[in-house]
Amino acid sequence: MNDKPAIPPIGRDEFREAMARIASAVSIITTDGPEGRHGMTASAVASVSDEPATILACVHRSTRMNRRMKANGVMCVNVLSDRQDSLSRLFANAKSTLDERFASSDWDTLATGAPVMQDAAIALDCEIVEIAEVATHSVFFGELRALRLAESASPLLYYNRGFHSIGTGILSGD
Amino acid sequence: MNDKPAIPPIGRDEFREAMARIASAVSIITTDGPEGRHGMTASAVASVSDEPATILACVHRSTRMNRRMKANGVMCVNVLSDRQDSLSRLFANAKSTLDERFASSDWDTLATGAPVMQDAAIALDCEIVEIAEVATHSVFFGELRALRLAESASPLLYYNRGFHSIGTGILSGD
Repeated sequence: MNDKPAIPPIGRDEFREAMARIASAVSIITTDGPEGRHGMTASAVASVSDEPATILACVHRSTRMNRRMKANGVMCVNVLSDRQDSLSRLFANAKSTLDERFASSDWDTLATGAPVMQDAAIALDCEIVEIAEVATHSVFFGELRALRLAESASPLLYYNRGFHSIGTGILSGD
Repeated sequence: MNDKPAIPPIGRDEFREAMARIASAVSIITTDGPEGRHGMTASAVASVSDEPATILACVHRSTRMNRRMKANGVMCVNVLSDRQDSLSRLFANAKSTLDERFASSDWDTLATGAPVMQDAAIALDCEIVEIAEVATHSVFFGELRALRLAESASPLLYYNRGFHSIGTGILSGD
C-alpha cells in the first residue's frame, strides 16, 4: 500500500461533473395532503423492490417539497416523455410559482391523492413508507398504490446538463 | 372519496413493465476486501448528496454480492459506456463465474481497494457509510473516496429491456 500514490480529496465540482455524466430519466415528483400540494423536478429516482413494489426518490432536506412530502406521507413520481422538457425546466425553476407549475399540465389523482400528470410517460403513485436521512438529502421510499403507463411514450433523458431523447438500440456483437 | 373508483392492486408484472420503461444508466458494481471480490450489473444507482459526495446503489438481499459488500465495507460503481453492453450482460448472467467476469476487462484500484474498471465511463470508488434495508433489497450509501472520468465516453442506457445509446439533444421550444 505504501507505494500507492496519494488519492486527492474529491472536490464538489469534480463530483458534480461526474454526476452530470450519468444519464438519467427525468421525473416530476408531486405531493398533496394536509400540508398542501407541491411539485419539483428530480432525477434521483430508482426502483428498489418488486415485493412489494417500492421505489425511492432523493430530495434535499432544506426544501419546502421535503417538508410537505413528510407531512403528507404520499408522493407521485411522474416520469416525463421526451416532449416534456419544458415541464422539467418549469418545475426545476426556483422562481416559478406553484400555480404556474400546476397550470402547465392536466392533473388527476389515483390512489393517494398526490397529483398525477395525465400526460406523463409513467405515473407511480406511492405511499411514503420509510425515509432515510443521508447527508443533505432525505431518501423517500414509496410503496406503490397505483400506477399508470402511457400507451406510447419515448423517455426524456438528462445528460451532460442537457435534455436528450433515447438513441438507437445496440445489437451486441456477441 | 366514496365516489372514486376502486384502485386495483399492482401486480408484479405491471410494476416490472413500468420499471422497464424508466431509462437508466448501466453500472457494474464491484467490491473487494476480507470477504473477497465480487461484481454485478446494476441499474438502481442514484446521486444522493454533494456534501459530502454520496451515491446509492440497491442490491438484492439474497445475493452473495450483498453479503460481500457488507463485509468489505466498500464498493466501486463503474458506469458503462455504450461500447460495453457485452460487459453488462456478462456481469448480469448468473451463470458466469467471477473469474470470467473479471477476466473480461482490465482493472486497477484507487482509494478503497474495490476493483475499478479501467475503461469505465465513470468510476465512483466509495466507502459504504450507511445501509437501509427496504423490502427485498439493501440500499447501500457510499461516500466517495476517489473518482475517475473517461476523457470521452457516451453512456450505455437500458430501456424497454434492451440497450441503447443516448439520442440527440432536445432544443426546447421556449
